[in-house]
Amino acid sequence: MKYQEHIAIADLSISAIGEGRSLSPYVAKCLNVFTQAGLRTNIHALGTNIEGPLPKVLSCIETCHNILHEDGVARIISNIRLTTRTDRMQSIEEKINAVSSKVTP
Amino acid sequence: MKYQEHIAIADLSISAIGEGRSLSPYVAKCLNVFTQAGLRTNIHALGTNIEGPLPKVLSCIETCHNILHEDGVARIISNIRLTTRTDRMQSIEEKINAVSSKVTP
Amino acid sequence: MKYQEHIAIADLSISAIGEGRSLSPYVAKCLNVFTQAGLRTNIHALGTNIEGPLPKVLSCIETCHNILHEDGVARIISNIRLTTRTDRMQSIEEKINAVSSKVTP
Amino acid sequence: MKYQEHIAIADLSISAIGEGRSLSPYVAKCLNVFTQAGLRTNIHALGTNIEGPLPKVLSCIETCHNILHEDGVARIISNIRLTTRTDRMQSIEEKINAVSSKVTP
Repeated sequence: MKYQEHIAIADLSISAIGEGRSLSPYVAKCLNVFTQAGLRTNIHALGTNIEGPLPKVLSCIETCHNILHEDGVARIISNIRLTTRTDRMQSIEEKINAVSSKVTP
Repeated sequence: MKYQEHIAIADLSISAIGEGRSLSPYVAKCLNVFTQAGLRTNIHALGTNIEGPLPKVLSCIETCHNILHEDGVARIISNIRLTTRTDRMQSIEEKINAVSSKVTP
Repeated sequence: MKYQEHIAIADLSISAIGEGRSLSPYVAKCLNVFTQAGLRTNIHALGTNIEGPLPKVLSCIETCHNILHEDGVARIISNIRLTTRTDRMQSIEEKINAVSSKVTP
Repeated sequence: MKYQEHIAIADLSISAIGEGRSLSPYVAKCLNVFTQAGLRTNIHALGTNIEGPLPKVLSCIETCHNILHEDGVARIISNIRLTTRTDRMQSIEEKINAVSSKVTP
């Protein structure tokens, strides 16, 4: 059984548990993983938007867990939002614009 | 028992279930709720960052559910990330800059 | 503007950042907050289901952040799923049974 | 670069957007995906715990999106909590017991 490859937009919030209070070094490392894989990204205050083919997005999230463990982080908790749709493509920017254009001035 | 009021940064992803495929009108309405309450916001592809006092942030999220139900949405599922810290204040912009400054060029 | 009070089912995953690797003591304290408030709960491997009136559920989540900070936790990140519906009531057990009854044996 | 395969505990909450109000048929289909892949599961009111090797867990989540799209669902939003740790193994049951044993009677 082979499925069509869907384009996904994901949002990753990754936390190292039992390390220091600053999580930004880990988030920056993950951002590099996505960028080096050719995925488009957008960072915000509580996570990172990621756009690309679903298998590649998930494989990069796996790599994020792996590289943080390699760096000595013993426990990781991620929260991932993941959306795919077949009716039409919508990029990170289009999704943001869809909301912005509807906000009452 | 009375607690100190903590500043929170939240991130809301709200979905209407059983309505149309477009969620942006609902997201835009919620954005107005936060803005009118004087909370700082930042929209991204899969949610809205919200910054302000914890009780006010949660009360506005409650209002978001209420106004969508008033609009006729029968079922709502939200995903909320919520962070508070007592060691120092960190705004939406400071959190984004903390990551950006660590990314390998 | 006064809204009808909706019954919510929430799911809380709470993490202390920069403390030890074990999160279960914090989860247990939060469980007590919900129980003492008369809310129904159900724990699972990555969170706690909570059932009750929406304002009370959110107020208890606020209390969870407050008591962990009082206990000396400097940084907290929660992930909350929150659902409300106006078409019918559905308890924690009914939601679990709705899935179980549809699983292919 | 090859990483050690980590055991993950994930929690999946999957929503079909723009379809009916009942999500339990979709949750049940996903549960079958995990079971058929030999992964251990535990359903609760707002999601499904899944235990197994990280690559297999993520690959099954990808399959869940694929089969729902094949079934005609045009838009899917998932929320995934994902935890891995290298200091020790902890099963779904052990995680639940770790909390239960700390609750004040």
